[in-house]
Amino acid sequence: MEHKHLNILIIGGVAAGASCAARARRLSETASITLIERGPDVSFANCGLPYHIGGEIAARDTLKVHTGQTLHNMLNIGVRTLAEAVDIDRKGKLVAVRSASTEEIDWLPYDKLLLAPGAFPVRPPLPGIDDPRILTLRNLQDMDRIKTATASAKKAVVIGAGFIGLEMAEQLHKLGIEVSLVEMLPQVLPQMDAPMTMLLADELRKNGIDLHLGDGIESFAPEGEKLACKLASGKTLAADFAILSIGVRPEARLAAKARLELGTRGHIKVNKFMQTSDPDIYAAGDAVETFDRITGSAAAVPLGGPANRQGRLAADHMINPASARPYPGSQGTAIVRAFGVAAGLTGWTRKRLEAADIPFLSMTVNDNNHAGYYPGASQLTLNILWSPVDGRILGAQATGGEGVDKRLDVLATAIAGKLGIEDLAQLELSYAPPFGSAKDVINIAGMAALNYTDGLLNPVRELPEDASVQIVDVRPKPLFDADPTPGAINIPFPMLRAQLDKLDRSRAVVTVCALGKTSYFAARILAQNGFDVQSLSGGIMATRNPRAAYKLPS
Amino acid sequence: MEHKHLNILIIGGVAAGASCAARARRLSETASITLIERGPDVSFANCGLPYHIGGEIAARDTLKVHTGQTLHNMLNIGVRTLAEAVDIDRKGKLVAVRSASTEEIDWLPYDKLLLAPGAFPVRPPLPGIDDPRILTLRNLQDMDRIKTATASAKKAVVIGAGFIGLEMAEQLHKLGIEVSLVEMLPQVLPQMDAPMTMLLADELRKNGIDLHLGDGIESFAPEGEKLACKLASGKTLAADFAILSIGVRPEARLAAKARLELGTRGHIKVNKFMQTSDPDIYAAGDAVETFDRITGSAAAVPLGGPANRQGRLAADHMINPASARPYPGSQGTAIVRAFGVAAGLTGWTRKRLEAADIPFLSMTVNDNNHAGYYPGASQLTLNILWSPVDGRILGAQATGGEGVDKRLDVLATAIAGKLGIEDLAQLELSYAPPFGSAKDVINIAGMAALNYTDGLLNPVRELPEDASVQIVDVRPKPLFDADPTPGAINIPFPMLRAQLDKLDRSRAVVTVCALGKTSYFAARILAQNGFDVQSLSGGIMATRNPRAAYKLPS
Repeated sequence: MEHKHLNILIIGGVAAGASCAARARRLSETASITLIERGPDVSFANCGLPYHIGGEIAARDTLKVHTGQTLHNMLNIGVRTLAEAVDIDRKGKLVAVRSASTEEIDWLPYDKLLLAPGAFPVRPPLPGIDDPRILTLRNLQDMDRIKTATASAKKAVVIGAGFIGLEMAEQLHKLGIEVSLVEMLPQVLPQMDAPMTMLLADELRKNGIDLHLGDGIESFAPEGEKLACKLASGKTLAADFAILSIGVRPEARLAAKARLELGTRGHIKVNKFMQTSDPDIYAAGDAVETFDRITGSAAAVPLGGPANRQGRLAADHMINPASARPYPGSQGTAIVRAFGVAAGLTGWTRKRLEAADIPFLSMTVNDNNHAGYYPGASQLTLNILWSPVDGRILGAQATGGEGVDKRLDVLATAIAGKLGIEDLAQLELSYAPPFGSAKDVINIAGMAALNYTDGLLNPVRELPEDASVQIVDVRPKPLFDADPTPGAINIPFPMLRAQLDKLDRSRAVVTVCALGKTSYFAARILAQNGFDVQSLSGGIMATRNPRAAYKLPS
Repeated sequence: MEHKHLNILIIGGVAAGASCAARARRLSETASITLIERGPDVSFANCGLPYHIGGEIAARDTLKVHTGQTLHNMLNIGVRTLAEAVDIDRKGKLVAVRSASTEEIDWLPYDKLLLAPGAFPVRPPLPGIDDPRILTLRNLQDMDRIKTATASAKKAVVIGAGFIGLEMAEQLHKLGIEVSLVEMLPQVLPQMDAPMTMLLADELRKNGIDLHLGDGIESFAPEGEKLACKLASGKTLAADFAILSIGVRPEARLAAKARLELGTRGHIKVNKFMQTSDPDIYAAGDAVETFDRITGSAAAVPLGGPANRQGRLAADHMINPASARPYPGSQGTAIVRAFGVAAGLTGWTRKRLEAADIPFLSMTVNDNNHAGYYPGASQLTLNILWSPVDGRILGAQATGGEGVDKRLDVLATAIAGKLGIEDLAQLELSYAPPFGSAKDVINIAGMAALNYTDGLLNPVRELPEDASVQIVDVRPKPLFDADPTPGAINIPFPMLRAQLDKLDRSRAVVTVCALGKTSYFAARILAQNGFDVQSLSGGIMATRNPRAAYKLPS
């Protein structure tokens, strides 16, 4: 067979690199496979790093999925750690590898080369940035440094409220450290649309995280024994250490030096088989730019799932190109937990669609994670975005207590299957009282979206500022009295049909309730009685008070 | 508008009937809507009944989603309970409704009629079947009777180990009652394939449920103060009461009397808009026969999800036929929890595919519900069945601790989207350590299925009886010694490459491990070294000991 003595060289030994090595070995017992890793560890669980810092993952070794030794034993591959690839001779098909200990350079030959160098945390050139107390988290050594810092720390500043920032804030807090979380944008989890992050922000505050939103870091300076973090607003936060988690950049220096084609944001460009502009050089993982599964546009998604699958696909194409299957593109499915709240997304968000000028419609609904009559039900908020052309789902976001991951996974699958809002309405999902509802929140989102496109539901995202609009809150009076909707009159839903004369038919109406469901029912009554009426989409829960529904008697 | 004064009559006030009433009112404020219910309650949560018996749902009223009064207040509909529809005059468009209290009959007119009568528990004509201690569970009154029986009972026999039987066995056990569970077929949950129910049976036994599988009920008789349940095997189980949960039959008497077309199994036949053979008479819910979403063949799925959506669709077509969307068919997605184990299915099973002579391929895999390095991970077993023609998923079954519902819902969505094994391999599902894995068990199932169709993996469902086949168990020696595989030699995986000479190349080999993953790796090594080799699909966990993997060091 052609690949009998194929010589495969892999640069980078974590998610994509280790996956490629393992898959290559399954496909060929005779290939020579060598894995080069700059750091001391291969195949570690980088998504687990925050949880060892916080102590949830007690044993450090748990994070080592493999060592060089186990990779050798299991896969019969050569592993060189503390060895950095510094140059590629594409013509000669050689990679220069420098040993960290001896500084000696070896030129290693390859038939097929995989670049899986990952991405590194952004460290902007701010005043004071070189203070050793400003830490980032990429590998086990970074983790160890942070863990050491936590031992004597009372106060930490986490800069950047993305996925890593949120996980770090939570885990540091669990260690009893006072945490300030700083985010330049006016919301946590900037990957998501702001309204879908309200519950997360509320949960962080409830748990004592000191949130600073819409306020970027400007500089660092020592202040006594502390590190002073100065924000754009002029505020100064003094801490024992800071975590910088404002994003990552692709490790593309080697690729650039080898004149491989790069994307506009500096990633290594690959085709559907993970080949770079040199067909014998593949790339996979956080360093690459592939394409978006929905639109086909360029996309770089630095997450573990895509990295693992890309590394595996690269091995398929290196060894059996004829039967290798193309990468279907990335969706950016992601999730995070902070204390009792989870939030996540798949596909496109409103802000990205708006920025890309892609037409879309949006619907936000709330419902229980499982049958409301079964104990322990909690509320979920779900937003879906779809194409007005064909109804196809473009993106989804979810937040709540339990069951967020399930809804995201169903919607990620719906996107992969090119399903539309009509399909969501009719999904037949598993239902028993501990697990779901006869109509799952996903069905309800699909039904509400169809109501919208059918003209039955006329949603509005925010309460009108225009005082001529009549705002009608249809919640029960005790709930309205406890948390009145500004500018609204209260007509509890069961009384609405009898009290239509309280409203002025010549003026527009917006109906409001906790979840956006009863307000829709009310809007149907009003519309059929000749009113110009809109319903507040997602209700108070999705617009003003993310715990509005938790106040409802169960 | 056409439907201004449409007169809608609905027979049956639970899932399908109440959904139809509510949707019809949203679509038309002016329609006259009347709901007729034979029992005293409308819109109750019938899936919750077992959980009130067991006390998990403490307050009985929690199960009443609506009362006649709240339906009137919210929806402005007329509700008549304790009123049975006994005849239909299709020509005159009238339904004869008999009051349970007065026995008087009213003929009520309709423009559009919905039949949503549900299904009743099967009560076969066995000797002694009329003993009042033989109870079934369909409504709140049945529930009350069982609850009363539990008050003084020490021992109960549950006959039929389907969804209701399992839920009842669990809930009665929680009340401190000794439970025998009797099932004619040699497995619990006969809706699923036997291997996928092993864990469930094991969990029931571990919790002290006295299982009698492959043993049907033959007769009942009083025995002292007890009820003696005599089984086909000759065994007699004495109990204070018995629950009969061996299936349901559609309530189609009224439809038959009205000469509406029935299906071969006695259900009311409907088209995609839920119309019976009389276009002004609709039917929905447990009593109807619709079609299978995958094959298009006739299908009757007596579950809450389809019932709710069918009732809603019927209202759409009654009021706005031009814009009504067709029912996409049923998949039979279902799930049950018994103690710490969940099990469920979506689409077709092996036994149904075999019976229908539909070609299929099958793959069973095991993996963690979330990242193994994060605390609390538990094992899941997943079986997928797909078409050898195009790879399309025909069915899936899952069992395990946490996360079963999520995988079923993803696979139900994959089926709705006509996805294939290649798509499963590349689904981009949500991953953070508390929620998932970089490669979810669903990805792994797709990858394993592709390995199978690509000829990389040659799975075998059972250990060979043929002594000439060499069985090689590749688990670590301590695990093998603790629970040896019958007839196998033990070569721990890392030693395999060096110990190939222990094996006879002229004889076939089957490799075995706990999960079916390492045995695949071993089979790849052997195949590439010239061996005729198969790997035990799903490992020991899916074939012999459903807790095999739980023994592995974490």
